[in-house]
Amino acid sequence: MPNKLTLVSFDLCPYVQRAAIVLAEKGVPFARVDIDLDNKPDWFLAISPRGRVPLLRVGDDVLFESAAIVEYLDETLAPRLHPDDAVARARHRAWMDFGSAILADIWTVETTADRRAFTGARAALNEKFARVEAELGEGPWFAGAAFGLVDAVFAPVFRYFDTFDRIVDLGILDGLPKVGRWRQALAARPSVRGAVVADYGDRLERFLERRGGVLM
Amino acid sequence: MPNKLTLVSFDLCPYVQRAAIVLAEKGVPFARVDIDLDNKPDWFLAISPRGRVPLLRVGDDVLFESAAIVEYLDETLAPRLHPDDAVARARHRAWMDFGSAILADIWTVETTADRRAFTGARAALNEKFARVEAELGEGPWFAGAAFGLVDAVFAPVFRYFDTFDRIVDLGILDGLPKVGRWRQALAARPSVRGAVVADYGDRLERFLERRGGVLM
Repeated sequence: MPNKLTLVSFDLCPYVQRAAIVLAEKGVPFARVDIDLDNKPDWFLAISPRGRVPLLRVGDDVLFESAAIVEYLDETLAPRLHPDDAVARARHRAWMDFGSAILADIWTVETTADRRAFTGARAALNEKFARVEAELGEGPWFAGAAFGLVDAVFAPVFRYFDTFDRIVDLGILDGLPKVGRWRQALAARPSVRGAVVADYGDRLERFLERRGGVLM
Repeated sequence: MPNKLTLVSFDLCPYVQRAAIVLAEKGVPFARVDIDLDNKPDWFLAISPRGRVPLLRVGDDVLFESAAIVEYLDETLAPRLHPDDAVARARHRAWMDFGSAILADIWTVETTADRRAFTGARAALNEKFARVEAELGEGPWFAGAAFGLVDAVFAPVFRYFDTFDRIVDLGILDGLPKVGRWRQALAARPSVRGAVVADYGDRLERFLERRGGVLM
């Protein structure tokens, strides 16, 4: 009997989505506990060294840091999403980290009130997505026919742009046909669709309005 | 015949040290190519998606991102440094990431000219090392008797403090006996000692002088 899995979450967190997507790809049931990041409960701060989501409760153990969580899920639950080859796997892990760097730039774009910081982060995203375009093959997924952990990392990245596109034309993904096709394929994947609440886009838009940064 | 390994490096980079330490723990010979981060060569920019070191050349393949590189080395070369248990391994990976978060705070402490940013990063380091103290056991290493990848991550973290201590009393590691013992054990480890050039401390001090931040 496998351990009961509980994902400690926040409704808009892209890092939580990674774990939710991987759990769905594995077909494993799990509980989800949402916390209020503006008012973090003490039990949460006690077990989350950086005060961040996601956490994964595995029986009595607590795992933190999304990349470590999805690696754990991939090592312990079938089907394996990482490639079998060690060099390919290392490159996938590095591209997962690259996805985290993109999320850091997106955070600046969506929240900063400083126009120079906004412009700098937008330029950094242009550069990073050009790197992604150069790395992609025929698709539909990052490494071809098999959906992998890099796909689980980039799905929440692209989801931001669905909301951004309703607000303003940032032009970040223009002229990148492989990136565009990857984005479309991910948006249609059931595990990706199910990783957020139904009104995610509206919630994100309300969050952006509250922040009132350059983007709005 | 194993592939030839080349570590693309920068003399002061803590992320490069992770890979150098792990390679030494494995007893594997490798070539080291230092580049000038202030004047990055084109061949380097072409193969480093974030323009960062370390890179690891494995035959004709190029790996980037230090955590992915050390995972690769650990998966392909004996002895295994990660724990066998999947939950323990996931926690080690998360603490490796925690070490990266500490390095980000250290970067602010050592370079910023903004006194508020300096004070904030110092406070963040106090908080993070208190978490580390609470996680440590009897030592000598992070997880007890076996030297692991978390140790390879924290060795370059503590090395910064050897230089900081010559300049100013930051008080960050005060009152943390387990952290202090861990730091001492790491400083004496041959793989750690051999991971940097002999005049590393002087080079770092000159770098700090050139930056001319609050620390100096």
